[in-house]
Amino acid sequence: MAGSSFGKLIQLTTFGESHGIGIGGILDGFPANFKIDFEELNRFVAKRKPGQSKITTQRKEDDDVEFLSGIFEGKTTGTPIAFLIRNYDSKSKDYDNNKVVYRPSHADFAYDQKYGIRDHRGGGRSSARETVARVVAGGLALQYLKTKGIELQAFVDQVGDIRMPWEDQHSDELAYTENEIEASILRCPNSNVSSEMQSLIEKTKASGDSIGGCVACKIVNVPVGLGEPVFDKLNAVLGHALFSINAVKGVEFGAGFESVTKNGSEHNDLFEEGGKTVTNYSAGIQGGISNGMPIYFRVAFKPVATIAKIQNTIDADLRTSSIQGKGRHDACVVPRAVPIVEAMSALVLLDYYLLQKVHGQ
Amino acid sequence: MAGSSFGKLIQLTTFGESHGIGIGGILDGFPANFKIDFEELNRFVAKRKPGQSKITTQRKEDDDVEFLSGIFEGKTTGTPIAFLIRNYDSKSKDYDNNKVVYRPSHADFAYDQKYGIRDHRGGGRSSARETVARVVAGGLALQYLKTKGIELQAFVDQVGDIRMPWEDQHSDELAYTENEIEASILRCPNSNVSSEMQSLIEKTKASGDSIGGCVACKIVNVPVGLGEPVFDKLNAVLGHALFSINAVKGVEFGAGFESVTKNGSEHNDLFEEGGKTVTNYSAGIQGGISNGMPIYFRVAFKPVATIAKIQNTIDADLRTSSIQGKGRHDACVVPRAVPIVEAMSALVLLDYYLLQKVHGQ
Amino acid sequence: MAGSSFGKLIQLTTFGESHGIGIGGILDGFPANFKIDFEELNRFVAKRKPGQSKITTQRKEDDDVEFLSGIFEGKTTGTPIAFLIRNYDSKSKDYDNNKVVYRPSHADFAYDQKYGIRDHRGGGRSSARETVARVVAGGLALQYLKTKGIELQAFVDQVGDIRMPWEDQHSDELAYTENEIEASILRCPNSNVSSEMQSLIEKTKASGDSIGGCVACKIVNVPVGLGEPVFDKLNAVLGHALFSINAVKGVEFGAGFESVTKNGSEHNDLFEEGGKTVTNYSAGIQGGISNGMPIYFRVAFKPVATIAKIQNTIDADLRTSSIQGKGRHDACVVPRAVPIVEAMSALVLLDYYLLQKVHGQ
Amino acid sequence: MAGSSFGKLIQLTTFGESHGIGIGGILDGFPANFKIDFEELNRFVAKRKPGQSKITTQRKEDDDVEFLSGIFEGKTTGTPIAFLIRNYDSKSKDYDNNKVVYRPSHADFAYDQKYGIRDHRGGGRSSARETVARVVAGGLALQYLKTKGIELQAFVDQVGDIRMPWEDQHSDELAYTENEIEASILRCPNSNVSSEMQSLIEKTKASGDSIGGCVACKIVNVPVGLGEPVFDKLNAVLGHALFSINAVKGVEFGAGFESVTKNGSEHNDLFEEGGKTVTNYSAGIQGGISNGMPIYFRVAFKPVATIAKIQNTIDADLRTSSIQGKGRHDACVVPRAVPIVEAMSALVLLDYYLLQKVHGQ
Repeated sequence: MAGSSFGKLIQLTTFGESHGIGIGGILDGFPANFKIDFEELNRFVAKRKPGQSKITTQRKEDDDVEFLSGIFEGKTTGTPIAFLIRNYDSKSKDYDNNKVVYRPSHADFAYDQKYGIRDHRGGGRSSARETVARVVAGGLALQYLKTKGIELQAFVDQVGDIRMPWEDQHSDELAYTENEIEASILRCPNSNVSSEMQSLIEKTKASGDSIGGCVACKIVNVPVGLGEPVFDKLNAVLGHALFSINAVKGVEFGAGFESVTKNGSEHNDLFEEGGKTVTNYSAGIQGGISNGMPIYFRVAFKPVATIAKIQNTIDADLRTSSIQGKGRHDACVVPRAVPIVEAMSALVLLDYYLLQKVHGQ
Repeated sequence: MAGSSFGKLIQLTTFGESHGIGIGGILDGFPANFKIDFEELNRFVAKRKPGQSKITTQRKEDDDVEFLSGIFEGKTTGTPIAFLIRNYDSKSKDYDNNKVVYRPSHADFAYDQKYGIRDHRGGGRSSARETVARVVAGGLALQYLKTKGIELQAFVDQVGDIRMPWEDQHSDELAYTENEIEASILRCPNSNVSSEMQSLIEKTKASGDSIGGCVACKIVNVPVGLGEPVFDKLNAVLGHALFSINAVKGVEFGAGFESVTKNGSEHNDLFEEGGKTVTNYSAGIQGGISNGMPIYFRVAFKPVATIAKIQNTIDADLRTSSIQGKGRHDACVVPRAVPIVEAMSALVLLDYYLLQKVHGQ
Repeated sequence: MAGSSFGKLIQLTTFGESHGIGIGGILDGFPANFKIDFEELNRFVAKRKPGQSKITTQRKEDDDVEFLSGIFEGKTTGTPIAFLIRNYDSKSKDYDNNKVVYRPSHADFAYDQKYGIRDHRGGGRSSARETVARVVAGGLALQYLKTKGIELQAFVDQVGDIRMPWEDQHSDELAYTENEIEASILRCPNSNVSSEMQSLIEKTKASGDSIGGCVACKIVNVPVGLGEPVFDKLNAVLGHALFSINAVKGVEFGAGFESVTKNGSEHNDLFEEGGKTVTNYSAGIQGGISNGMPIYFRVAFKPVATIAKIQNTIDADLRTSSIQGKGRHDACVVPRAVPIVEAMSALVLLDYYLLQKVHGQ
Repeated sequence: MAGSSFGKLIQLTTFGESHGIGIGGILDGFPANFKIDFEELNRFVAKRKPGQSKITTQRKEDDDVEFLSGIFEGKTTGTPIAFLIRNYDSKSKDYDNNKVVYRPSHADFAYDQKYGIRDHRGGGRSSARETVARVVAGGLALQYLKTKGIELQAFVDQVGDIRMPWEDQHSDELAYTENEIEASILRCPNSNVSSEMQSLIEKTKASGDSIGGCVACKIVNVPVGLGEPVFDKLNAVLGHALFSINAVKGVEFGAGFESVTKNGSEHNDLFEEGGKTVTNYSAGIQGGISNGMPIYFRVAFKPVATIAKIQNTIDADLRTSSIQGKGRHDACVVPRAVPIVEAMSALVLLDYYLLQKVHGQ
């Protein structure tokens, strides 16, 4: 109810602020007796880390995950898994002027109005640093899902108006290899498009500005039957999860906003003998329930609000002032958003996978 | 957990199938001592009704709302408000062939796979008829919100590739009068665009086909502070609510997928003295919390799956068959989706309005 | 959150007031494809009915259950099961003076203070008539549990200070036959004790008074592993369920308040080869998790508050007044409480039975 | 759902095992802008600590509370408050034989059966050490409630068959001063009874055995209207909270199991002008809603299961074995249970206090 928890059978509760002791969480309900691959987990968590390349922020965050409970001799025990990622390089002095002015299109003003108090050393609870806890929990969920054959893959398919086409929404395999994605500092698996995107971001950054982008995600080998009509349709819960990520302004499944322009006769996915469909515009979900075809969707991220340009704003007395971003911020957030989209999707999928075990004899 | 409930302080639980006794719900947690305007409620519920014009299905459903509890002498008592809308004109014989074949891009197959049983007289629980319960509950929420000054307005802004521009996302007033919207059988307040849309739909219908569309919604006078970070951001819960509506394939807030192409310096909403912003690309929500500016969003509905054309499909043994829609179905669902979008939005707004009363002294 | 819902995977939401249209509920999450024995269900629901014998209230309530959804051709479909029991014989004139005075030890005053409005024709929502919805839902749960071998049995083991000893808390079988229990109008399976109780109640009733009592319950063949530590221990959720029944003032598991006087060496249940225990003072639950031994507990019901004697009270202006119960009320509530205790216990057991399916591979 | 969370608007989620890194929790939804008295909090947490006197276990646990988030410059920020209490003196070698045998009337067997894995270094998650997290969270809740005038007080009123009478359940004041309670190492405010209890416990301990006891609790100045009928009655949620505490076998409100022997004419609480009642057998709750009178209840704790005597048991292969408790355990748990009962009660009261803010205009 208070907003820091997500999930039903698997519930993640997060805590922490960008300039406090650290960020962490409790993952409750994770299946017992699961052997964690900590190396793989660290590799996954590192994907969200700032400072990975010249186009992302140079803040250094080691993001070492300290597990506090729920694991015994490398295996989950079925009890809550708590973890903490300490803040090392918070440099709160970069943020000193936040004490007096509200950053445009940031949550500072809304938090102050809601709670009447705010840790003004930085974004605090509203900072995207909170998502590191989601990536840790989601990383565990991904490992579990993989043992059941369910795989997720997100990548960048748009930066500004440069968009990479991809059309493998029908096959039961991931669209790209991990190498293809990781070879690009943008996490865009098409190297030509990736280069274009990189140029755009560098140009944008040089001008003291930022730019938005989209993350696409494909999920394969989803069992038929996941999703709980009518309010907890699988797409509704995925939508909830994705819109809970900082800076997300849009979510579309399958043909999404394009589907609006289609006729039913074009858009309908005709069945083939056996239950698969010829096309997959429905993106693997019908009536809120997975139908066995791949699930795929796109997520729109607005341009980063902190920019190096001077902007008009107001101070805590709501009087006119100005601000210039001095922190080390991303010019484009989407490469680092890729593991966050994967993590939130994995948490939803695992929750509904477990929920489906209740059904049937 | 089982999926038929939505909301926290205000919880709607719905029941019923398209060809059973009726559709209904329990609205628990509605504020006590509220005088209901039943005439207004009936008018609102009627907006969802089929058979309103030649472009919508000619099925006749009277949608008389029978209240079963929670109201005494015209006022709410604070106890659960239960209601039932009986099915009168179900004509299940139109659906007889569903017994043997799965309708493409319908939920029949997924339901059968999930539950191992399905009321094959029609869409059953997956039918959009279920949304009548949402409209009743949402209609009550709308009435309550209005007494607090909060107003919602949805309308059709796209059918196929015909899109109506509207740019009043900044003012504290609704964009259109109710008359402007209701004058159009499309619920599109621009009469020229509405005529175009109507022609397109008639042509589509004549060819035995269907077409998609978008519903836009604007909410004004939202108090600052609604929304519960980090997972229950106001936009995340709205996203959940909207994606739970049948046929929705996309949701975008503010500039949405367009925001991706913007620079931060363009997209940032600069503050004015007093706390309002010069622009409102953020759509009234920052960090998941309402900031006092209008909230607005768009919802994409796919083309109706039931069409008069013959389509290939499979039967319950998963073997090749074919189907031709014989029921009375909409060629375009968006005009009737308008009150559903309003209803779900109102339920979210009321829930978070009440939740915010907990904050503060 | 609003209080009218109970359960996790299986959620019952009830509605209705004693003098309105009726009482009903929605049972969401019930397993699909279950063939309901309606005759058995009616027999179970009838146990709660007033007017069964000269010691219970002579109000006539037929308690016909009208199912509104979720059942197709006699089987559950996995969608919400809604039902309505109409109020036929409400005779609200018996209650006219409630309009002006608060009944001592009734909820009238508290409801008025909480909600600022109350249906003063009777107990309204606070009436024990609400429990008929629980009995319907619990009756379905009982039928399902029985197919899994899990059986529940409640009976009256105390009225006033007359208490029936029973010591079969260890065997895997129910303590009594249904005939032994139903042969007694008190639902006390020891005929001598039952006769004593009956005399006491008749004497109490004749003097215009009422008396309290206890219901005992035993549950057998509970699988090992049910219960979710640490807050949702099986006994904690049973405790919640039982204290939600009107007039309950105490709940004890196993040796209960007697266990306080025991030494650990007496009270500990030593294990036998295979995992069963020699004694069963723990009442089948250790650390909040079922251990495979029978679960048993006792529930204390206070004397009925409505009595024929004149009592001092206050009116709605909180000024001194007096009241004399004129309605047809039970002198002792426990015989009719037996199916309610069984129903609430069955709902908990079924919920945790399903929840346990999530665990394991 | 997974069991480690409690509460609605205020939600406590705990983590940790007795022999791992530590115990901790996240308290989400705590009101913002509240100045914490850390000294008072430490004093409260220390009450649960072992090693306080010769009758409690001599394990040394410093129980230093390390706050990780949600507090800025000594005040709550409205964001989740996370905290960790490290395990310093776990001495897991005392527990080595647990690896092979199940301790009678402990949760070892049930955990192993449920999860298929268990941290066999000690009680793990089922250890009462988990309750330290509840005491931290409850201590914060107590401080907040006090600023609203609501006060709670628990004390020991029974050990074995020695019971202290107390009859101040009607006045709006706490029954005893804190000094009267803390002067007794039993936390029994009657010094004669306390001495008797102490003798009994010492004798019991000397014989290698343990004994049960009861904790009573009184809550004063509770506003009228708290509690959410029908399933979340204030007593039902308190019952849930109390039964979730380790070793609790019974809970009774007001006259409790004694009320069973009363006539309605004795037990009914007649109203006085103004709305107070002459007696308070109802214990401040009617129909699940607080009525403004003091709330009071008793909680029965079974004798501690770990005793120094040799007991028969089984090993992990379910074959006969024996065990002798070698750890440093309490002979009677109730003095240390006092703050736990207060903590859980405070969490419930705060939750329902906040929930009631939603009601009314």
